Amino acid sequence: MNAKLQWLRNKMASLDLQGLIISNPVNIRYLTNIQAEGILLLTRKENIYITDARYIEHVHSTLTLFDEIIVYDINDVSRDDYENFFLFCENVGFEENYVTYAKYKEYIRKYKINNLVETENIIEKQRMIKDEEEISNIQKACEITDNCFSYILSYIKPGMTEKQIADEIEQYYKQRTDGLSFDTIVASGENTSKPHAVPTERKIQEKDIITIDMGCKVNGYCSDMTRTFFVGEVPENIKPVYDLVLKNQLQTTEEYKDGANTRLLTKMVENDFKLNGYDLVHALGHGVGLEIHEAPYVNYKSDTQLRENMVVTNEPGIYLPGKFGVRIEDTIAITKFGCISLTKSEKNYIVI
Amino acid sequence: MNAKLQWLRNKMASLDLQGLIISNPVNIRYLTNIQAEGILLLTRKENIYITDARYIEHVHSTLTLFDEIIVYDINDVSRDDYENFFLFCENVGFEENYVTYAKYKEYIRKYKINNLVETENIIEKQRMIKDEEEISNIQKACEITDNCFSYILSYIKPGMTEKQIADEIEQYYKQRTDGLSFDTIVASGENTSKPHAVPTERKIQEKDIITIDMGCKVNGYCSDMTRTFFVGEVPENIKPVYDLVLKNQLQTTEEYKDGANTRLLTKMVENDFKLNGYDLVHALGHGVGLEIHEAPYVNYKSDTQLRENMVVTNEPGIYLPGKFGVRIEDTIAITKFGCISLTKSEKNYIVI
Repeated sequence: MNAKLQWLRNKMASLDLQGLIISNPVNIRYLTNIQAEGILLLTRKENIYITDARYIEHVHSTLTLFDEIIVYDINDVSRDDYENFFLFCENVGFEENYVTYAKYKEYIRKYKINNLVETENIIEKQRMIKDEEEISNIQKACEITDNCFSYILSYIKPGMTEKQIADEIEQYYKQRTDGLSFDTIVASGENTSKPHAVPTERKIQEKDIITIDMGCKVNGYCSDMTRTFFVGEVPENIKPVYDLVLKNQLQTTEEYKDGANTRLLTKMVENDFKLNGYDLVHALGHGVGLEIHEAPYVNYKSDTQLRENMVVTNEPGIYLPGKFGVRIEDTIAITKFGCISLTKSEKNYIVI
Repeated sequence: MNAKLQWLRNKMASLDLQGLIISNPVNIRYLTNIQAEGILLLTRKENIYITDARYIEHVHSTLTLFDEIIVYDINDVSRDDYENFFLFCENVGFEENYVTYAKYKEYIRKYKINNLVETENIIEKQRMIKDEEEISNIQKACEITDNCFSYILSYIKPGMTEKQIADEIEQYYKQRTDGLSFDTIVASGENTSKPHAVPTERKIQEKDIITIDMGCKVNGYCSDMTRTFFVGEVPENIKPVYDLVLKNQLQTTEEYKDGANTRLLTKMVENDFKLNGYDLVHALGHGVGLEIHEAPYVNYKSDTQLRENMVVTNEPGIYLPGKFGVRIEDTIAITKFGCISLTKSEKNYIVI
C-alpha cells in the first residue's frame, strides 16, 4: 500500500473507524493518483474503488499492484455487495464537508451503516503537510510562473486589453503545464481596486498601474503569485501604499515558519495597515496544493500553527475603491527555521 | 419581484414552506442574475442576499429595485440577525442535493431552525422549462457552435494534434462568447472509442476518423454538439456503425416532443443497438441550460416526460474499444408537437 493510504489507515485506527467512504475526487487523487469519477471505500481489509465504464481503462492504467486497490465497475456491484462492504464495521467515517445531505442519507441506506460519523477533514489535514514530490511539483509550477511573469512584462504594451494579456498568460501556461490553477486576474488602472477583478476590454495606458494574479498546475499541483507594477513611472500617490504592502509582505515572510500562528500573523499585518489608515479586506494567505485554495488558511478567524512542509501564500493587499489597489503575493514553503519563497519575481517597484 | 422569484414563492406556499435557503450559485443566478459568492434567503416577507465585500459593488450593479432583493454584507449580519430571519417560520426549505452535511448542521444552528426540510430540487425542476430569453441564449450559443464547427472543418489538416484543434476551438469561442461550456473533446483514430476522450498530442492522419464534442456559453447558457467525421474517405468498416448511429439519432429527433417518456426513448435506441450487436454505454441525452448537464436526464433510469420548452441533447453513440467510436449529438428544443434542432451542422458523412 502506498504511504498516504497507510497513513490514513493508521489514522482510522486511532479514531476507532473500521471503515471510511472517500467521495471528494481531490482527496481520492491525493491518495491514489486516480483522476476519475468514483468513490473510494476503505473497508476492514480492502481498499475498493468503484467507478463506471468510462473510466475503468484509465483507472487500471493509473494503478499498480503496489497500490492494493480493487477496482469495480459500478454496474457489477449488487445491492448485497454494498451491504457487505462495511459489514461488522461499528463506525464508518465520511466527508461531511464534501458530501451533500442527500448523499449522506443515501450512504446510510445503501451501505446499511449503523454509525456514519463525521471525520473533520482528516484527509485535508493530512494534505496540508506536503512530501518531497508534492513540493517539487509546486516548485516547478512556481518557476514556470516566474518565467511567465518575466515574459509577460516584456509582452505588455500600452493599447493592449486586460483580456488580451490574460489570454497570453493562458497560452504560455498551456504550452508548458497542465494549465491554469485559477482564472488569471489582469486588472489595470482603477480596476486594480477590486481584489477579485475579472479581465476586461480596458486598454493599458501610459502611467497605468497593473495587478496580475496568476498561477498554473504541474502534475495537478498549483502555483499562485501576484505582482502590482507600473507603466512608465510609479505615481507618487501610490508609492506609500506600495511601500506599506511590500514592507508587510517582507515582514510576514520573515515570520512564516514552523510554529507561527496564522491568526497572529494576520493581526500583525492588519494592525500595521490600520495604523496607516487602511484595512486588510481579505485573508493574508491560504494553503496551496492540489487545490489553489486549501488548508491551512491564514486569516484572523483561523487559529492554527504553520508547520514544516506546508505550502502557503503570503499576500497582503490594500484596495482603495474607485482609485487603485496593490497586492504582492508569493507561494511559500515553510521549513523548520523559516521559509522559502517558491515564487521569486522582483518585488521592488517594477516599471515597464 | 421578477417572474422566477414570484413562481418560486407560489411554489413555497403550496409546499407549506415559510422560508427557503438557496445556496447553489447556479440557482441563485437563475433567480436573480447575481454571479457572486453568497446565499439567498426567502423569508416570510423579504428576499435577502448575503455576500461579502468582494462582491457588494457588483451585486448592486446587477440588481434593480424591481428585483426586491435586500443585499447584506456578511460582516454586518449579527448572530441575532441570523436568528431573526426565519423567526416564526414553521418549515424552512434547503437544497439537500447541494448543501453538505456539515452546512446542513450549521444552518440549523445558525438560523435556529426547527424544521429544515428537503425541497427535492424545486428550482432545478423549474429550470427545466426555459423561457423565451433562455432559449434565445441557447440558440445563439448553438449558432456560434455550428459556425465554429464549419470553421474547424476547414482548419483541420493532417499533422495537426488533437490538442491544437481543441485550442483553436477554444480561441474561436473566447472571441465570440462567454467561453467553453465544457472541455472540448477532440478524439482521433482509436481515441474515438473513448466516449470521454481528452485531447492528446496524437497527430491527425490521412484516413482518420475524428470525433469533436464542443459547446460554448452565451449569457451563461450552454450549447452542446458532437460530430464524427472523416479524413479523405469513410472507411467501409465504419459505415454500418455510422449509419446505425445516425438512423437512431434521426428517429429519436422525430420522437422528442411534449409527453415523450425519457426511459422509453432510451430503450428504443438501446434495443436497436442490441439487435445489431452493439451497446448504448452512456445516456441518450441531458438537459442543457445554465449548466451543461442538468435535468431532465434522458437515460434508462430516468422516468420523466419531455415537456414544451425543455432543451435537451440527443446523442446516441457506439464505441468499439481499441478500434473506433461514433457519436452524433444535437441540442434540441422541445415544442408541443415535435422538436427543433438548435444545432444544425451536417449529419450525413462529412469528409475533409
